[in-house]
Amino acid sequence: IDRIDWQPDSVELGSFSHYMQKEIREQPSTIRDACRGRLRPAEATAQFGGLNLSASRLRRIRRVVFAACGTSWHAALVGEYLIERLANLPVEVEYASEFRYRNAPLDDRTLVFVLSQSGETADTLGALREARRRGFPTLAICNVVGSTIAREADGGIYLHAGPEIGVASTKAFSAQVAVLAMLALHLGRLRQLSFPAGMEVLRAIESAPDLIGRILDREPEVIAAAERVAIARSVLFLGRDLHYPVALEGALKLKEISYLHAEGYPTAEMKHGPIALIDPETPSVFVAPRGSLHGKTLGNIEEVRARRGPVIAVGTEGDDSLAGLADHVLSIPDAPEVIQPLLAIVPLQLLAYHVARLRGCDIDKPRNLAKSVTVE
Amino acid sequence: IDRIDWQPDSVELGSFSHYMQKEIREQPSTIRDACRGRLRPAEATAQFGGLNLSASRLRRIRRVVFAACGTSWHAALVGEYLIERLANLPVEVEYASEFRYRNAPLDDRTLVFVLSQSGETADTLGALREARRRGFPTLAICNVVGSTIAREADGGIYLHAGPEIGVASTKAFSAQVAVLAMLALHLGRLRQLSFPAGMEVLRAIESAPDLIGRILDREPEVIAAAERVAIARSVLFLGRDLHYPVALEGALKLKEISYLHAEGYPTAEMKHGPIALIDPETPSVFVAPRGSLHGKTLGNIEEVRARRGPVIAVGTEGDDSLAGLADHVLSIPDAPEVIQPLLAIVPLQLLAYHVARLRGCDIDKPRNLAKSVTVE
Repeated sequence: IDRIDWQPDSVELGSFSHYMQKEIREQPSTIRDACRGRLRPAEATAQFGGLNLSASRLRRIRRVVFAACGTSWHAALVGEYLIERLANLPVEVEYASEFRYRNAPLDDRTLVFVLSQSGETADTLGALREARRRGFPTLAICNVVGSTIAREADGGIYLHAGPEIGVASTKAFSAQVAVLAMLALHLGRLRQLSFPAGMEVLRAIESAPDLIGRILDREPEVIAAAERVAIARSVLFLGRDLHYPVALEGALKLKEISYLHAEGYPTAEMKHGPIALIDPETPSVFVAPRGSLHGKTLGNIEEVRARRGPVIAVGTEGDDSLAGLADHVLSIPDAPEVIQPLLAIVPLQLLAYHVARLRGCDIDKPRNLAKSVTVE
Repeated sequence: IDRIDWQPDSVELGSFSHYMQKEIREQPSTIRDACRGRLRPAEATAQFGGLNLSASRLRRIRRVVFAACGTSWHAALVGEYLIERLANLPVEVEYASEFRYRNAPLDDRTLVFVLSQSGETADTLGALREARRRGFPTLAICNVVGSTIAREADGGIYLHAGPEIGVASTKAFSAQVAVLAMLALHLGRLRQLSFPAGMEVLRAIESAPDLIGRILDREPEVIAAAERVAIARSVLFLGRDLHYPVALEGALKLKEISYLHAEGYPTAEMKHGPIALIDPETPSVFVAPRGSLHGKTLGNIEEVRARRGPVIAVGTEGDDSLAGLADHVLSIPDAPEVIQPLLAIVPLQLLAYHVARLRGCDIDKPRNLAKSVTVE
């Protein structure tokens, strides 16, 4: 018997034009739901009921492998940066479709996770089955309760994001990132992360929903930028460190629903090839909140401007250095780096939404795509 | 004193129209030069003079990290597949610009390599210095003898590819891949690879130059496909397993010199988003030589055709299943999988060359790009 966990009203469109719009705006509550009962301030950590692995077992882990597809693969890349930073554990992120066939080296101290919103993605299910066939306990991060992947995994974490109807995933992505931030905190606190450092991460995660609410109020900024992007020939998305996966995900949203060719790159990699594409019809979207490498990113933006490329930047509120360089700034509140990906993706989701709207595309059901890819 | 190892005549254009054309056609001899004195049939292995690490030290390695940019990053990805397959060692490929700043987890049993044709790439040099500062012996795979990276590394392997003048790297890529295939053989033979299995790999590497010569004779096939690609809006490149990096590199060549937006993906990942771009003006280039997953790739090609997307396929000579599905087949000879990337990249280099020529681009000096990126 499959349990139905969701109330009918959570899938009604209400006053929204599209499910994607509704789901973007639901993200503050989605993240609250994903965190509910999992943050433990008394121990400055996060905890999960269904991992089914003891603390001592988790502490013996020497390497983490994530296997996923599409948007979940991008969330896993954020997880890589977070876990490497907070727990100093090497993480490898694999395309599930590649992992399932290539007999990737694993050993007893490797922990394998698969990620899938629907829990039915064929390639991800194939990766799960392959890892388990080889005798490795494999955990799942899923949204749909009772899905095939959730049932077959040795343990895992549910997103509790509620049903996602729009084909382009939005709230499931941010719920995944929130879960991965909590997982990084948990693994970090089993290792070198101190109580105060853990508490800072915990407080940052708790603050994310309200900060996202403030970003959602700034939609007019995004609409102005969308008007420029809607007439582009193609678009580059650039980010460093934690924001590299955000750039990839921003590009994927645009590709999926507006049919504009958009591609994500690590910011500094642009000069090794992609910069050849830059001209007045090819805007660049920099994910550039204030941080330790901000000066270098400003230099990269100047290179694009010197070649007459339009620039849109996701930046920190009140960052004047960016305002002077970019044609459009999409502002996000100042916040600790570990939650910045949760904030920075929101204007890019809205950007894709408005570009698709301006181009007259079928936002919730883009051509050629299915919500859950249950074929290879 | 810097040694000059190259004869002056090796940098003259001769009867060629462009250095890129010349360098593509030099690849059989480049690979022979890269292999000279390194293949040891008596022991079914490859050996390098400058690694400066004992066999017992190399056998203790538990993980390999490659840091590189652009084309060298793609070569490193081929290296990942080869080393994981032949030596069962987990490999992580990092963008040098990311690696240098993010304090990636490393331990005493991790071996770090940096790759750079010029040996002067700023981000790669930064990655080398960061790894050495942290006390990890770091090896280099370079072309230019006496370059900064070659001098500062703890050891390494030269490509012996001769000077590369065209900004879009071609022969340096294939020399890197040949060196990485030999490195995978070396590491494999220190581990589980048997004498006969090692000998098969060795013979395959030896056979590559002649097989590439046969591909170069089939340029007219490529020109016909280039005429279709030259009028495209944008292009997707798709490959599985060892051919995923080939797809990335093929896309980068096109981007660099023809200014067409081209993007590479693992073949099976296409349905998780990029397939939304498919229409009659957006061709897909499948790297699809015969192999164990060929049937699945044929299924993916059918999905593209069902959406009226033009299809160009790099395939094995005489593969009728592909001929019936693709608009253009670029044939390569049948060969063992470990050297297929060396073969499959050649028609894609030629494709980029001819598309750029048809579009009237400055092939050897594409806009916005420098041969050696010595700034961040």
